[in-house]
Amino acid sequence: MITFGCPDRTGIVARIASFLAEAGGWIVEAAYHTDPDTGWFFTRQVVRADSLPFDAEELRARFAGVARSLGADTDWRIDDTGERRRVVLLVSKEGHCLYDLLGRVASGELDVDVPAVIGNHDVLADITRAHGIPFHHVPFGADKAAAFAEVAKLVDEHDPHAVVLARFMQILPPELCRAWAGRAINIHHSFLPSFIGARPYHQAYARGVKLVGATCHYVTADLDAGPIIEQDVIRVDHGDTVADMVRKGRDIEKVTLARGLRWHLEGRVLVHGNRTVVF
Amino acid sequence: MITFGCPDRTGIVARIASFLAEAGGWIVEAAYHTDPDTGWFFTRQVVRADSLPFDAEELRARFAGVARSLGADTDWRIDDTGERRRVVLLVSKEGHCLYDLLGRVASGELDVDVPAVIGNHDVLADITRAHGIPFHHVPFGADKAAAFAEVAKLVDEHDPHAVVLARFMQILPPELCRAWAGRAINIHHSFLPSFIGARPYHQAYARGVKLVGATCHYVTADLDAGPIIEQDVIRVDHGDTVADMVRKGRDIEKVTLARGLRWHLEGRVLVHGNRTVVF
Amino acid sequence: MITFGCPDRTGIVARIASFLAEAGGWIVEAAYHTDPDTGWFFTRQVVRADSLPFDAEELRARFAGVARSLGADTDWRIDDTGERRRVVLLVSKEGHCLYDLLGRVASGELDVDVPAVIGNHDVLADITRAHGIPFHHVPFGADKAAAFAEVAKLVDEHDPHAVVLARFMQILPPELCRAWAGRAINIHHSFLPSFIGARPYHQAYARGVKLVGATCHYVTADLDAGPIIEQDVIRVDHGDTVADMVRKGRDIEKVTLARGLRWHLEGRVLVHGNRTVVF
Amino acid sequence: MITFGCPDRTGIVARIASFLAEAGGWIVEAAYHTDPDTGWFFTRQVVRADSLPFDAEELRARFAGVARSLGADTDWRIDDTGERRRVVLLVSKEGHCLYDLLGRVASGELDVDVPAVIGNHDVLADITRAHGIPFHHVPFGADKAAAFAEVAKLVDEHDPHAVVLARFMQILPPELCRAWAGRAINIHHSFLPSFIGARPYHQAYARGVKLVGATCHYVTADLDAGPIIEQDVIRVDHGDTVADMVRKGRDIEKVTLARGLRWHLEGRVLVHGNRTVVF
Repeated sequence: MITFGCPDRTGIVARIASFLAEAGGWIVEAAYHTDPDTGWFFTRQVVRADSLPFDAEELRARFAGVARSLGADTDWRIDDTGERRRVVLLVSKEGHCLYDLLGRVASGELDVDVPAVIGNHDVLADITRAHGIPFHHVPFGADKAAAFAEVAKLVDEHDPHAVVLARFMQILPPELCRAWAGRAINIHHSFLPSFIGARPYHQAYARGVKLVGATCHYVTADLDAGPIIEQDVIRVDHGDTVADMVRKGRDIEKVTLARGLRWHLEGRVLVHGNRTVVF
Repeated sequence: MITFGCPDRTGIVARIASFLAEAGGWIVEAAYHTDPDTGWFFTRQVVRADSLPFDAEELRARFAGVARSLGADTDWRIDDTGERRRVVLLVSKEGHCLYDLLGRVASGELDVDVPAVIGNHDVLADITRAHGIPFHHVPFGADKAAAFAEVAKLVDEHDPHAVVLARFMQILPPELCRAWAGRAINIHHSFLPSFIGARPYHQAYARGVKLVGATCHYVTADLDAGPIIEQDVIRVDHGDTVADMVRKGRDIEKVTLARGLRWHLEGRVLVHGNRTVVF
Repeated sequence: MITFGCPDRTGIVARIASFLAEAGGWIVEAAYHTDPDTGWFFTRQVVRADSLPFDAEELRARFAGVARSLGADTDWRIDDTGERRRVVLLVSKEGHCLYDLLGRVASGELDVDVPAVIGNHDVLADITRAHGIPFHHVPFGADKAAAFAEVAKLVDEHDPHAVVLARFMQILPPELCRAWAGRAINIHHSFLPSFIGARPYHQAYARGVKLVGATCHYVTADLDAGPIIEQDVIRVDHGDTVADMVRKGRDIEKVTLARGLRWHLEGRVLVHGNRTVVF
Repeated sequence: MITFGCPDRTGIVARIASFLAEAGGWIVEAAYHTDPDTGWFFTRQVVRADSLPFDAEELRARFAGVARSLGADTDWRIDDTGERRRVVLLVSKEGHCLYDLLGRVASGELDVDVPAVIGNHDVLADITRAHGIPFHHVPFGADKAAAFAEVAKLVDEHDPHAVVLARFMQILPPELCRAWAGRAINIHHSFLPSFIGARPYHQAYARGVKLVGATCHYVTADLDAGPIIEQDVIRVDHGDTVADMVRKGRDIEKVTLARGLRWHLEGRVLVHGNRTVVF
């Protein structure tokens, strides 16, 4: 799978498509987008590996020349979709996103490896282990820096394709935001940019909104302000207490996170500035 | 139709229902709600006028005693739904909400009188008049206070049940917010509280949200912060420019406004603090 | 909690509310509906148990007279919401609804007992037992009648408030439809009445629909034609294969089932003919 | 704008993109899709006219060779998007779709010519003429064939890009279905394939569904069974009468029709068998 971005101009598609055609590449899925504001061109192409006479490494070496000729030295990548994706989950006490993701993994819907779940509480340890997945309890006491160092160590040893904050409820320090840039995915329990920060359902109740939502986004050092991958909402009314909003919101949180994570792992999400292209 | 609020306690429903039953009142529609936070009780009851042996005036006089006994001196009203509702529309250049409301009125779906449409521009004069409705052009130049005084005069002579800011694009001065409290209805082109103020679609585009929305709310002196009657959203993606968002958003704005206005005119919306009960 | 239906007439609300008020009953939640077609009146009232000077049994005995005086000999019930609800789940191979419900139970969101899960295959045995719930494998071979007899025995010993066909994929015989009338709940993987019967996603794909849905309904002897409790849909497009539709549909199936089941267990669903009132 | 379909194979994108690149064509928007079931490849490409050194006619002549080499003799077209689209509307008594479309045209949102509106009743004549559009009243009495002949004559003289049945309520005879194949667009007031035929809201009410919908589709000789362009739904509940469903449904009908019509006119809809690709 090739994802690629460069300044827009005539002939990009022809250049890339001809390169692939000459190699005999069978394109299974292709998407293109040009952002009119920034004049930036984006594409994602899925090529059948068995249609090419060489492997991913060789494809990368050959494509580098094409990319360079189009002015894209680094803004592209070729991923072998045959390699299983590794996902590490960070959790706290609220289990609905964890239960949902584990269910998707167990049923084969989300075909990934989860080598570790890390919690700042241990209430979700048993269910995690029942799925045959190691659970690491890292208490967050006075020394948050030490706790985050421990989390980082546990995460990085798996070099995961995604670090999912599945209602983790702790704010990542800037150095981890940087280290995991483009891989750390959060689910925020509001329709951002409404209700940034703590207790968004309480904020939503106080404002009297008629819909509550959830936002799946990449984590950046700027709280709840990273590039948005996916959002969704659900209707509430005057009969709903904060507790009802929390309950209804959970159903949106978990499907929004699952969709965003799937798209990320399939290489469908291209970040440009603070916006995303989702092919 | 009775709408009523009082501090919650035992026996309120029995008191009101018995009062109506003794008078032979046939309840067509009844709704109750108790807000657990404030301990406030709300009800709306629609009674068939021909089932009562007296008129609305007499009903009001008799019900006053019931209300007083329940601790509600003023927080109730009895409206004669047989009286046609009068709606005055304030518009600017954007016509989609006006076209939509006029279409609903013309087809009989919204069975109200529109005695006047007032615009700070005159681009929507012709279509308004084609519907047989007077259009008043009040230019907003340097002297906004004078313009608003003229608008107020044109509105108040009809003593309307609703003053609808159908994408009016001018901020009502505090004295008009007060004068039309509970009757002035605005449609804001974002999912409030996101993107308060000017150019919300531009703000939404810059933030990279995946849904845009609209909010129908009562106008208060606090900009875009009045009690919300109804909200809705529509999906957008990376392929949508600001202009596309504007276009898609219009479809949400007009139905959200139409729903909110209908509920207001049917007496379904009870305001309590900055939240609404919509029966 | 009282749920009650009778032919509509003047004074029903007064009669019921006065009865409760005289007993000192504190109404926490009340809903009323009159069906204009059939002239039938419906109500559901939640009364705080500790506000009454007698227990549920005594309340039933006293209320029977009220009901009779309103022409409702049998169309009412009084449930003690303090009694924990028991839910038995029937499953096959597809686990998404089971995973979802078990997650809700484990996290306390769905506060019920699940004394048994019964599967015609055993692939979901391990996850069920990991939640501490007994799993019974009842193979469905040539003798379906015997298998259903075994299922019925396993279900009935728990006298459950709900028997949930969580993608069970077997058609209940008429005698079980009768025995479990108003308690057997199915999730059908289409927006009924579209695509009744087998392989609805394949039917949906062939028809080229732009939304797929799910329907939670009471099971009757008439296949996929029982009273609908809840429905929802999700958007699909030309890029979605049948497998994609199946995957997207699962997210709708599980939340639609969870909502419908919750409403059923809370006594919010009143059946009248083939339609439901959902308070 | 090029829309093109052919059997899938390696190198199609390269062939088309290279052809355009060699001519200097600046691709503004490009979309590709391969249907895995039928092995059919689809593409739509929007090229800036001023980036090409020749006109649409010459482009067609040159592209014909490319198309032939890819096995597509006829399954492609090149449209000059600079040519204004002509749309003829067929109506009956229900005006909501007509009001909505006229409002969109008047406000410039739908930038098309409407040279004629034809009604089998004349109740919508005045509003049509107020928009400066000729209205033709063709009564449908005993001789339907004669009436349809008259309608056909009035339509065909404008050679429209779309013939919109905006709640026309008359079934087109097979010869008109053929003559206007791929151009006649209907809005059906249900979520097809549910509730085919007459009075779908009555059918929906009787079945007790929790959502009602609308379907915009191409008209074929098979009633309500043509390729679906767009669908949408809106929530209803037990409190909604058939009249309420009709009212709520109208809001979905008009936006669904407007979206489908826009996509059709922009050449985004490619029909393959009874399914559509909507780019």
